[in-house]
Amino acid sequence: MSDVAPVLDRLDASLDESLERLFALLAIRSISTDPAFAPECRRAAEWLAADLRSIGFAADVRETAGHPMVVAHHEGEGPHVLFYGHYDVQPVDPLELWEDDPFAPALKEVEPGRKVITGRGASDDKGQLMTFVEACRAYKAVHGRLPCRVSILFEGEEESGSPSLRPFLEKHAGELKADFALVCDTGMWDRETPAICVGLRGLVGEEVTVRAADRDLHSGFFGGLAANPIRILARVLADMHDGNGRVTIPGFYDGVEETPPDILKSWEALGRTPESLLGPIGLSVPAGETGRSPLELIWARPTAEFNGIVGGYTGEGFKTVIPAQASAKVSFRLVHRQDPEKIRAAFRDFVRARIPADCSVSFAPHGGSPAIQLSYDSPMVKTAEAALTQEWGRPAVSIAMGGSIPIVGDFQRLLGMESLLVGFGLPDDRIHSPNEKYELSSFHKGQRSWARILAALARGGRQ
Amino acid sequence: MSDVAPVLDRLDASLDESLERLFALLAIRSISTDPAFAPECRRAAEWLAADLRSIGFAADVRETAGHPMVVAHHEGEGPHVLFYGHYDVQPVDPLELWEDDPFAPALKEVEPGRKVITGRGASDDKGQLMTFVEACRAYKAVHGRLPCRVSILFEGEEESGSPSLRPFLEKHAGELKADFALVCDTGMWDRETPAICVGLRGLVGEEVTVRAADRDLHSGFFGGLAANPIRILARVLADMHDGNGRVTIPGFYDGVEETPPDILKSWEALGRTPESLLGPIGLSVPAGETGRSPLELIWARPTAEFNGIVGGYTGEGFKTVIPAQASAKVSFRLVHRQDPEKIRAAFRDFVRARIPADCSVSFAPHGGSPAIQLSYDSPMVKTAEAALTQEWGRPAVSIAMGGSIPIVGDFQRLLGMESLLVGFGLPDDRIHSPNEKYELSSFHKGQRSWARILAALARGGRQ
Repeated sequence: MSDVAPVLDRLDASLDESLERLFALLAIRSISTDPAFAPECRRAAEWLAADLRSIGFAADVRETAGHPMVVAHHEGEGPHVLFYGHYDVQPVDPLELWEDDPFAPALKEVEPGRKVITGRGASDDKGQLMTFVEACRAYKAVHGRLPCRVSILFEGEEESGSPSLRPFLEKHAGELKADFALVCDTGMWDRETPAICVGLRGLVGEEVTVRAADRDLHSGFFGGLAANPIRILARVLADMHDGNGRVTIPGFYDGVEETPPDILKSWEALGRTPESLLGPIGLSVPAGETGRSPLELIWARPTAEFNGIVGGYTGEGFKTVIPAQASAKVSFRLVHRQDPEKIRAAFRDFVRARIPADCSVSFAPHGGSPAIQLSYDSPMVKTAEAALTQEWGRPAVSIAMGGSIPIVGDFQRLLGMESLLVGFGLPDDRIHSPNEKYELSSFHKGQRSWARILAALARGGRQ
Repeated sequence: MSDVAPVLDRLDASLDESLERLFALLAIRSISTDPAFAPECRRAAEWLAADLRSIGFAADVRETAGHPMVVAHHEGEGPHVLFYGHYDVQPVDPLELWEDDPFAPALKEVEPGRKVITGRGASDDKGQLMTFVEACRAYKAVHGRLPCRVSILFEGEEESGSPSLRPFLEKHAGELKADFALVCDTGMWDRETPAICVGLRGLVGEEVTVRAADRDLHSGFFGGLAANPIRILARVLADMHDGNGRVTIPGFYDGVEETPPDILKSWEALGRTPESLLGPIGLSVPAGETGRSPLELIWARPTAEFNGIVGGYTGEGFKTVIPAQASAKVSFRLVHRQDPEKIRAAFRDFVRARIPADCSVSFAPHGGSPAIQLSYDSPMVKTAEAALTQEWGRPAVSIAMGGSIPIVGDFQRLLGMESLLVGFGLPDDRIHSPNEKYELSSFHKGQRSWARILAALARGGRQ
């Protein structure tokens, strides 16, 4: 008989205690994009290292040029796996849209029999990473050992472009290289159906600042004569898409492949429509490239998105000013073999070509990672598929993901290691938005799923 | 002999005291666009009323729905004039660009023999309005009377679109109607050459907010599928000008007249080039309609300007969000017979036509006033021209102005009263920008100019 059954019982019995631990972690304001919260990031790292030590890991907090990493190791006889998660969270503004304090996590019954965990990071990624930690804790408590040799890497800069990650992986490659990686930062197909992610879009972030006059100007004196940086920036951004929603930057689609017809067909079979995808967020009209299904748009097509813009007077009332500068945060989601640095360079050329001779432009890079495409039929994927199907009572589906998880590309390139992407988030978790939540069922059955996956991996996939 | 000579002597002798009074007024943070400063606006009004009472005016602070007005009257035998100025000032952000505290006014020697008064409102409009008050004070001190019957109206909402002004003028029309108005909110041609303004552009302000999804979205999940309000707004703004710098809103140029060739010629004779106008602010290329002289662009052509834009994440670092909304502050400078409300409606139609079916847009109006065109050869203008020429030792020039002064249109429409626009500001005064200043020579000779103008008006223009 499987040795996982008592572990699952133990996870059921200790759910309340596991929630208390998660709440303690969620209460730490580890916002990585804002330097003001650096001490909170460190606190989250230290909390995690201490928790891992309490269940027998050799765990410590490692310095980087930015926020620290947590590295932990535990001996075991099965294959060597490296589990990855991130303890940093997104900013919480606009704060006034939160129903509850984002850093006072709570359990809420949202409908009879359905509870959710509320708070920033509940789903992305603290709740997810703790599903794995809890699975290890229970296995250890029941059997006094782990079924595999387990290493853990927790990062604190995932939400700010992971600037320290590559140097860290390069420096500690020998220590961190395992047979494969387990990454818990993705989602389920729906509340009942588990999923394994085999495709991930890449990401390039850029901040562009257009400067015109050397000071703010009165629009009465200078309007109609002096260059207006908001007008220049609006022109640049508007020029970036054509009437069919395609990105117009020269070379942007280099390396983009058409998705095979059988894959498109399997996605169509999932039954998503523009209405079912956009309805829950108050929209109905697909805004991307025309003539493509909504799942193809978010899973297998590249995009240019505008994530922020600011210039001139934005306070109460009105100020008839021509501002000295205006800036925008622009990001690109990449697929297949698009090259992040070529895209960055092409974008900068595209912008520079639209700046008047007496104005200037500057750029700040914010991360860059290529897309990832895993094989649909690797043994590792098949093993996890079976374990997930057993736990959830529904066949696990192989999907792609719109968001990037740069670590997966880095594991591949720097450590020669494939990643198994299993997660329990849901599209309505409001990650990166006010009122983030994580289903209690995701947290609980997520723990059980990892226990099953670890056991199955130890058996080499045999039931 | 003229009775103005001893008044001029008195103004010379009391310059230091007049500066102390101006500094006291400049220290009051009367920013009208920000509700947080409402008590400071009231304090400025009360300070002015008290000062006017101290020189024999019947002066009081009058309530409005917004910031209060100051109304004052003084008997006199000559014509009845109504002097207008505004005690409110522009916001001071970005505060870090100020060399000195904007509300700690000071006198600075910027080159040998040239001093300037620094602080927010020094030029726009507290310094200017005090030139008139000081002229009255000196005349009264020397002669025990004023040469004209003088009424005064000081407004506190000029920088926020003057919402209370029209109702106030309508309600107090009988009390405020004079033979003509004197308005001191304009500039000189250059530091040595006085000017009278005979043309003023009008202004329409609009705030437009585009809303897409009902929450901020993760650009990984929804990028390429969900509408992005920054992209929609950028498209709208970019569409508003064609390749020749003309505004593309249908009907925008209705009521715009070509400036007569002899006027254009007189402006050309002033010798301004794109370089001489734009060089001081770090620019060189005219950004408005092609094929027109720079003075025509700012004095006699309408514009669409973008004064502020904000949407999405604008803090430190990066956030891969598709924001729920984005907004812009847009203003139009109007000339000749352009109708502000028709322009506003045409703009809104233009925007609405570019909003996708599942998104929405809302508008907030921020003031609206038509342009003003005075006659080049009215007796009032000729009288002031002679007085200014005498004071400054150079012929006063008749110019137009790019900025709007809505009061002038309101005086014409509501009180049937023409306005004489004389002011002593300079293009490099940095009004509406950090480090605003007013030349000490403007303040001093401005006082003397008003003393001469009042005396000349009392004599019916005879020397």
